[in-house]
Amino acid sequence: MSCDVVVVGSCNIDQIAYAPRLPSVGETVHGTKYEVGFGGKGANQSVAAAKLGAKVLMVAKVGDDANGYEYIKNMESLGVNVDHITISKEACTGVAPITVVDGGANSIIIFPGANMLLSSKDVARAASAIKAAKVMVCQLEINEETSLYALKSAKEVGLMTILNPAPAPSNISDEFFKYSDIICPNENEASLLTGIDVVDKVSGTAAAEKLVEMGCNTCVVTLGENGCVFAKANMKSQHVPGIKVEAIDTTGAGDAFIGALAYFLCYFKDLGFVEILSRSCKVAAQSVTKNGTQTSYRSKNQLPVALFQ
Amino acid sequence: MSCDVVVVGSCNIDQIAYAPRLPSVGETVHGTKYEVGFGGKGANQSVAAAKLGAKVLMVAKVGDDANGYEYIKNMESLGVNVDHITISKEACTGVAPITVVDGGANSIIIFPGANMLLSSKDVARAASAIKAAKVMVCQLEINEETSLYALKSAKEVGLMTILNPAPAPSNISDEFFKYSDIICPNENEASLLTGIDVVDKVSGTAAAEKLVEMGCNTCVVTLGENGCVFAKANMKSQHVPGIKVEAIDTTGAGDAFIGALAYFLCYFKDLGFVEILSRSCKVAAQSVTKNGTQTSYRSKNQLPVALFQ
Repeated sequence: MSCDVVVVGSCNIDQIAYAPRLPSVGETVHGTKYEVGFGGKGANQSVAAAKLGAKVLMVAKVGDDANGYEYIKNMESLGVNVDHITISKEACTGVAPITVVDGGANSIIIFPGANMLLSSKDVARAASAIKAAKVMVCQLEINEETSLYALKSAKEVGLMTILNPAPAPSNISDEFFKYSDIICPNENEASLLTGIDVVDKVSGTAAAEKLVEMGCNTCVVTLGENGCVFAKANMKSQHVPGIKVEAIDTTGAGDAFIGALAYFLCYFKDLGFVEILSRSCKVAAQSVTKNGTQTSYRSKNQLPVALFQ
Repeated sequence: MSCDVVVVGSCNIDQIAYAPRLPSVGETVHGTKYEVGFGGKGANQSVAAAKLGAKVLMVAKVGDDANGYEYIKNMESLGVNVDHITISKEACTGVAPITVVDGGANSIIIFPGANMLLSSKDVARAASAIKAAKVMVCQLEINEETSLYALKSAKEVGLMTILNPAPAPSNISDEFFKYSDIICPNENEASLLTGIDVVDKVSGTAAAEKLVEMGCNTCVVTLGENGCVFAKANMKSQHVPGIKVEAIDTTGAGDAFIGALAYFLCYFKDLGFVEILSRSCKVAAQSVTKNGTQTSYRSKNQLPVALFQ
């Protein structure tokens, strides 16, 4: 079965320990709740697009451990093509132990593990599947070289390429601008990339325009509940308003946006870019009304029909 | 197949995150190494005895999750009878996220999860297996009521019963004294139970004797590399020397001792109690010369032949 959206990126297991407070060194604290979640920006974006109905291929690497096998099972059950999720014996599945203390603040330790072993060779092995697809999505939670190779090889065979430059890099190779049709940072990432403190649509627009000056083709800066702004060379920048919802858990909302963007670009290209961004904002907004990351993403049949007309 | 040693106790997954330092609230730190280990005092003691060659039945409860199924697979592969490790849909497998910072100190969050749902009913279901066994081993990482029920029902059908009162309780029901033939705390646990600061064989002997006064039948206080002391009513207390080894990782050494004690009491009863304690100290000493908990326990064929003659 050929796929339309190819995501080359990360799979992480979030291990969320809820505790009254952080234990100090030498201390044992009794936790109140323990949860395991499927995360990683690449996988989240794959799942977000797949839940909307996109045919998604994920190119990723996990470890030869229970977490890795569980992850593949999870992706399969959500309809993502896992033929190119390979298993490494050299490193464990990416894992993020997260402690959430009373009040909601959290502290995180990150182990990229097998994600960092996903190589250009692994991407090359998916070449025929990539060639048959329409949209490629990358982030920066894997080896930078691998992301760049993926974007480059996708461009060469005519795919539309989206880069979500996350986690926030302080600088980024010019080549990413060259091989990405759309670069889509959030406020923090846009701030780090441009040096402009992005806090609203005015500063967001300035940052998007600066990124275009820096070589970006189309830049979309997401602004949470304020929607997004986008800029492109020789075109007036535009703000796309968000929608107000009662936010319960914003984790993974940015990934829901990227997944939706890939989906609409793939299957509703004729709507025009502003409408595509607007619908992507609406999909992302729905995800913040429910707890969890991938589990907060709605399926097509749980979303307003108007989004798919 | 009938079993000789029955352990009623805990299974925990240790999730060990090595990091340069503890992240503070709101912070993300990159970890250096991530390891998953099989722990829980009950399971450790089962494995220690099984590796020596004991026929061990473990009565325990895990969650309906990857950790639980992995745990059962691990126990099976080590030769422990898992017929009475049941799966709960109500709670996750016991888990302990541990952060080890540079320098080796650690902080721990404990989630007992399914361990706390192991009930007297679960123990009752193993009644015929218990009746066919010789030694029962309990700890305090499960519901106190369940441990007590297990010891009582084992005594009723003539088993020798060992209680490892760990983690350290500040008080303990008198009934534990009644239904345990041997109570075996380490220095800390003995200190907490008696109020005597146990730091050497003199204070250890005083604590062991006090526990006998409190109602304990036979009390063995382990003293790390200093071996152990034991006391019994109307008998002179005795010190059993330890052996000096190059300690690499003392985690789980206490559980190795208890597992060995159960093994020798079961299969080498005629050696006499001092010799049994001495051999148990030797087995435990071997475990500290290797990293890990269950993985540091030696099999019979990796230990001096003299231990089994």
